[in-house]
Amino acid sequence: MNPDIILLGHGSGGKLSHELLDNLIVPTLSGITQSDQNDAAVIAAQEGRLAFTTDSYVVDPIFFPGGNIGDLAIHGTINDLSMAGAEPLAISVGLIIEEGFAVEDLRKILETMRHAAQDADVKIVTGDTKVVPRGKADKLFINTSGIGVIKHDLTICGRNAQIGDKILINGNIGDHGIAVLASRDGLELESDIKTDSAPLNGMVKELVEQLGEQLHTLRDPTRGGVATTLKEIALQSQVEITLSENSLPVSDAVGGVCSILGLDPLFVANEGKLLAFVAPEAAEEALAVMQKNPHGGQAAIIGEVTALADGKVRLKTAIGGLRAIEMLAGEQLPRIC
Amino acid sequence: MNPDIILLGHGSGGKLSHELLDNLIVPTLSGITQSDQNDAAVIAAQEGRLAFTTDSYVVDPIFFPGGNIGDLAIHGTINDLSMAGAEPLAISVGLIIEEGFAVEDLRKILETMRHAAQDADVKIVTGDTKVVPRGKADKLFINTSGIGVIKHDLTICGRNAQIGDKILINGNIGDHGIAVLASRDGLELESDIKTDSAPLNGMVKELVEQLGEQLHTLRDPTRGGVATTLKEIALQSQVEITLSENSLPVSDAVGGVCSILGLDPLFVANEGKLLAFVAPEAAEEALAVMQKNPHGGQAAIIGEVTALADGKVRLKTAIGGLRAIEMLAGEQLPRIC
Repeated sequence: MNPDIILLGHGSGGKLSHELLDNLIVPTLSGITQSDQNDAAVIAAQEGRLAFTTDSYVVDPIFFPGGNIGDLAIHGTINDLSMAGAEPLAISVGLIIEEGFAVEDLRKILETMRHAAQDADVKIVTGDTKVVPRGKADKLFINTSGIGVIKHDLTICGRNAQIGDKILINGNIGDHGIAVLASRDGLELESDIKTDSAPLNGMVKELVEQLGEQLHTLRDPTRGGVATTLKEIALQSQVEITLSENSLPVSDAVGGVCSILGLDPLFVANEGKLLAFVAPEAAEEALAVMQKNPHGGQAAIIGEVTALADGKVRLKTAIGGLRAIEMLAGEQLPRIC
Repeated sequence: MNPDIILLGHGSGGKLSHELLDNLIVPTLSGITQSDQNDAAVIAAQEGRLAFTTDSYVVDPIFFPGGNIGDLAIHGTINDLSMAGAEPLAISVGLIIEEGFAVEDLRKILETMRHAAQDADVKIVTGDTKVVPRGKADKLFINTSGIGVIKHDLTICGRNAQIGDKILINGNIGDHGIAVLASRDGLELESDIKTDSAPLNGMVKELVEQLGEQLHTLRDPTRGGVATTLKEIALQSQVEITLSENSLPVSDAVGGVCSILGLDPLFVANEGKLLAFVAPEAAEEALAVMQKNPHGGQAAIIGEVTALADGKVRLKTAIGGLRAIEMLAGEQLPRIC
């Protein structure tokens, strides 16, 4: 495409916009033909309840080890739908591009978005592109919204955590946050840490099929990390959660960087992890489902719901103490997603 | 809420984020209780095809005569769903806020969003909030995505314009673009021109019910204006469209400003207008439906589909000439929506 940077006119809705859409964005993302482009996508009738979610991505930098803002956005929306027990059906992509952004970078990002969607068997069906003048945005922001279909009658939500439930996570925590942080200008952290960004719809489908009503709550611990997410669920379900520090899976690399920087991995963002609350008798089966999945090799049972309470999370520390866990205060790592 | 400006920590996903959500955003937008906040909203099963659309709003300034970025975003998504012949069901709201943005301005904008949604009988069911550092965005960007339900078997789309179709618009053109332009810093245009931003779902529902299969194509002429939108449809349906300049409804005020600035109202954005292509025998009925609607007082028949062709739009000028109409070239009015 010529020119090789994005111009304000690419957001005009006119001739340049159509060239950008027809030559780059639409063929790369979806393959919808020009004659089928309308203001809204039309989707066949569905059986089952619908799930609907939205997320805007403003991650800085937009390219980081293991991924970029594009596949992060697709995975994030797939995962939010999955946490409602839904199978992702269709995704929308809203781009806000800063004037002067390199067309080649845009192409790379759109290509990873398409691949991420294909890998999870979900279609990108509609989109929107805006361009703002230099200095009015930071390179590229992406909104992805998604529709999913809930093909069962289970109630999987934050209010449904129950006393005795075991709490599982599908692997090491903190990888995404530390990968993004380590790739920022000015920070010279040598590490091989990559984002854990991944689609979890396959794993959720298996959990739903295998566990049925024994699966109570699912949530992905993104911004705010595992600690904040568990605190949210404890508040919603009005329970007390007790975590075991010894059981928390953290890679040596992430643990090392966290020590150097004074960060607690419990508060660092993940983008390919889920927390599952399951009836105690189903915990081993849930663990086995996770461990068989490509995104669950390091899965572990990390705690349980120990009492009815006004939304409490406690950590049994490695040396036997009990520490109260609150939500992330302030801003630990801005623009992590 | 305290503090009275948005801080980076309001986007952390942690404690400050939850305070902003619980005290301002969620109660103002939707009234969903805290215990029901999950990663995705769950919506009852629907009968009929679904429509799905997304739009990001980056309008500058964010407040302008007759509206602001918030109701503009809600109307825009309602209208995009309506143009597929769908009844709007649920809307998502993704906010990207610049650090330092006034909480009071945010509150005003959220309130108009809620009212706009209520007026059109559509629910805001899910959302996302990001905060970026000062200078990394321009005050506030809003993404709205929407799901609609198509409760009929009609095919209303850009490919369906047919020879002989009459083309109607529901009122004066160019109001939105000129209202936003006139409110920009540095431009001292004295005018009473207000945005035409409005929800068109009610009008579309009546058109669908009254016209049935005689209703072929609907599209709202936003960025790029009536000219660009008609060119899109001409290309999609492979037809020639002939417009009559004498029939184009333009207010004296908008016509005046356009003359001063050298703008053509045919290329100026609208946010409460639709173009309808209808079978010729249904044109008068469609006109009557529009004129009875609160948003259609100035409705007019402005042209027709005159031939099969490779996507052509012609304007019969007031003095009897014929002028070829192309898409908007370059960027006439940046950040108009």
